[in-house]
Amino acid sequence: MENERSPEEIIVRIIELLDAKKYIRARDEILSLDAVETAEALEEVLEKPGIECAVILFRMLPKDVSVEVFSYLPVDDQLTIVNAITDKEVKYIIDELDFDDMIDVLEELPANIVDKILEKTTKEERKLINTFLHYPEDSAGSLMTPDYISLQKNMTVGEAMAHIRAVGMDSETIYTCYVKDRGRKLIGIVSLRALVVAESGMFISDMLNGDMVYVNVYDDQEKVSETFKRYGFLAIPVVDNEQRLVGIITVDDILDVIEEEYNEDVERMAGVLDSGDADYLDMGVFRHVGSRLPWLIFLMISAMLTGTIIRSFESLLSNVISLAVYLPMLMGTGGNSGSQSATLVIRGMAVGDLELRDAARVLWKEVRISFIIGVVLSCLNFAKILFLDRESLYVAVTVCVSMVVIVTLAKCIGGLLPMLAKRIGIDPALMAAPMISSLTDLISCMSYFALATLIFRL
Amino acid sequence: MENERSPEEIIVRIIELLDAKKYIRARDEILSLDAVETAEALEEVLEKPGIECAVILFRMLPKDVSVEVFSYLPVDDQLTIVNAITDKEVKYIIDELDFDDMIDVLEELPANIVDKILEKTTKEERKLINTFLHYPEDSAGSLMTPDYISLQKNMTVGEAMAHIRAVGMDSETIYTCYVKDRGRKLIGIVSLRALVVAESGMFISDMLNGDMVYVNVYDDQEKVSETFKRYGFLAIPVVDNEQRLVGIITVDDILDVIEEEYNEDVERMAGVLDSGDADYLDMGVFRHVGSRLPWLIFLMISAMLTGTIIRSFESLLSNVISLAVYLPMLMGTGGNSGSQSATLVIRGMAVGDLELRDAARVLWKEVRISFIIGVVLSCLNFAKILFLDRESLYVAVTVCVSMVVIVTLAKCIGGLLPMLAKRIGIDPALMAAPMISSLTDLISCMSYFALATLIFRL
Repeated sequence: MENERSPEEIIVRIIELLDAKKYIRARDEILSLDAVETAEALEEVLEKPGIECAVILFRMLPKDVSVEVFSYLPVDDQLTIVNAITDKEVKYIIDELDFDDMIDVLEELPANIVDKILEKTTKEERKLINTFLHYPEDSAGSLMTPDYISLQKNMTVGEAMAHIRAVGMDSETIYTCYVKDRGRKLIGIVSLRALVVAESGMFISDMLNGDMVYVNVYDDQEKVSETFKRYGFLAIPVVDNEQRLVGIITVDDILDVIEEEYNEDVERMAGVLDSGDADYLDMGVFRHVGSRLPWLIFLMISAMLTGTIIRSFESLLSNVISLAVYLPMLMGTGGNSGSQSATLVIRGMAVGDLELRDAARVLWKEVRISFIIGVVLSCLNFAKILFLDRESLYVAVTVCVSMVVIVTLAKCIGGLLPMLAKRIGIDPALMAAPMISSLTDLISCMSYFALATLIFRL
Repeated sequence: MENERSPEEIIVRIIELLDAKKYIRARDEILSLDAVETAEALEEVLEKPGIECAVILFRMLPKDVSVEVFSYLPVDDQLTIVNAITDKEVKYIIDELDFDDMIDVLEELPANIVDKILEKTTKEERKLINTFLHYPEDSAGSLMTPDYISLQKNMTVGEAMAHIRAVGMDSETIYTCYVKDRGRKLIGIVSLRALVVAESGMFISDMLNGDMVYVNVYDDQEKVSETFKRYGFLAIPVVDNEQRLVGIITVDDILDVIEEEYNEDVERMAGVLDSGDADYLDMGVFRHVGSRLPWLIFLMISAMLTGTIIRSFESLLSNVISLAVYLPMLMGTGGNSGSQSATLVIRGMAVGDLELRDAARVLWKEVRISFIIGVVLSCLNFAKILFLDRESLYVAVTVCVSMVVIVTLAKCIGGLLPMLAKRIGIDPALMAAPMISSLTDLISCMSYFALATLIFRL
């Protein structure tokens, strides 16, 4: 990276050269980028001059580099490339990809192309690929690779090192090695660090650590990433229901999973249906509409209920029209109060600080917090309504009492609803923002008008 | 993990035994847990029977296990333990911790305790520790460890392996080794995998990969975690402004950073001030109030502006009281529409799909999306208002025209505001939910009443 030009500048230059059809010079430029940067350049070329230029560029890469670059492309772009190159070229890429990357590509390809590729593989390979293709999406099975190093427990350290040297280049990682018994059951894990430091005559069986942490093939990827976070491992073994070792998952793949789970949560909080890995700009207008409209309609319908409540208090409202002035403020504060509590409780459950059995403690804490917050906000409002807005004492008291009630109800609902969601098996993140806001809007409106009716009757 | 009882059951049992003062049996139970699980048990004991029992339990652990367990505890609990044990015990733990874990603990300890610990270290160690303590929080410098393996470029592979064998146990990782020149400048990186596979007579200088990816000590941790995600590395070298190697960051520490950044984003989206690493239940009521009240007040004040707008249309409202019925629905839909766009744009910027220069494309896309969404929602409302609510055509037209205008404005603001925030150096995540909702509330209210005035004048 001693270049005077940044990768971004080089990419801009490459696109200029491609536009001018100066392919050889474009190729020279691209060779000064590393594989990740080349993949980024290819992404941009795909977007701007388009697929023809991208394929020309891709074909100009040295063969081994092209496979690595391919593995760094987003899935959508991989498919675009695969559809634009010859079957022979596809076969070469598929063969050279790491097993787990290959499975990722095959999962996305249309069935007829997959069949064509599988035709050319050996029967054994085909069986393995088919097994991997059938694990549920987002399961440990769909993330794992079978390219791990297995050692025998009666090997010496020297023999183990020789074995690693022989097969090391084809393994996903050599830093963690696995020991199986005759029935393929996982019986131990040895790190390369331990092997390097050990005497070469020592037996593997004497180095096995009985404490093994593993995941099941059908475990959800969220559980897998939790396990990685908890233990800080570089790789984790995956076993089937009989505790037979079927593959491993490495930490680099988990970084992607964590990001994916994070995006899912954030999108749920904003009321957007899962948009997958798609780029904002690449997604068509109708796909954007499709991912946003369902929640908007759902939330609109629940907001209509709030309207119905207002309608039922129409005569009160027409007598005291200034009640309408404070409604948005109360509803907004209720919604924000509830979202705060919901988010903190969801986070607490996600990191394991909060369990369902803590519900009573959460409730008690939220009641105290919301009482204090409610009183502070009420005081501010009381002063403003009486002295700035010069409204009647009735209005001021109505707004202030409502404020305490609304904040308290909103925070208690916000705290408990995510726990309830978890209890009945719904993703708590769904409760974070829009759901809670809709519910608190309804409750705020009801409390406000009910209290107003009471107070104005006095 | 062939235990018949789950770790949770064992932890419950330990707490029962401690309550019954059966310490030896509690200790026997705890030895069946691994270090991570023991740390979790200790956390629970700290919460329930309390600090006395926790210290008893902690002291019963074998010494080397106790340090590992300590390193897995959350910072708050580490401090609790440190304050309850003797200086000598603290010194032992500090000495045995990995360098980066030690720095994390020292950063949190009160200055007088740090000084007492530093007194007992050598002058050189003290200098190193002090340098590390002075990197800004959340910088690469605050995450790194100096315990890496450096090789000389004129070493052979055999010599390198012997060196690794000798110092391997004290290094944070041995899987990536670093080569420096005389001026301590980083000149290359060699993986243990490459060393293991290579002939033992080969020279390190022939194995160096010119493509080095590194970060600067002052880079923000978010940039560091982006680099890890991009390249999938196990470790990344950290250099100073003169490109001298000062430390390395390993991927296990990055998993924590990613979680921290995620929590920060989510809390900002919910309008909660940074609550750090604190547990929901451990945080006192007043600390909860402190992290929630500021945003609620800010948002309440902006909602008061919405109230002012309603007041200025009071006469219109008292004539057509049913306008109030549809206000919450329009405001809610505006807020949700804006949040959706903001979240998608923020995510796009975070993963690098969207740049500031894409603003015009984002705007054009949001205009088209919101027009379609606005029209669909309007049609639903038109039917409902005329046939279910049996309101006048004027009201129906006002609500429907407002809906299209509000959704369009909200989505354009939601799309552009995060970009503007980034442009002027504010965290875009702040724009995601509450800020956008407040702004769209204001705009929804204004558009609705302005359109109503126009339409009812016809």
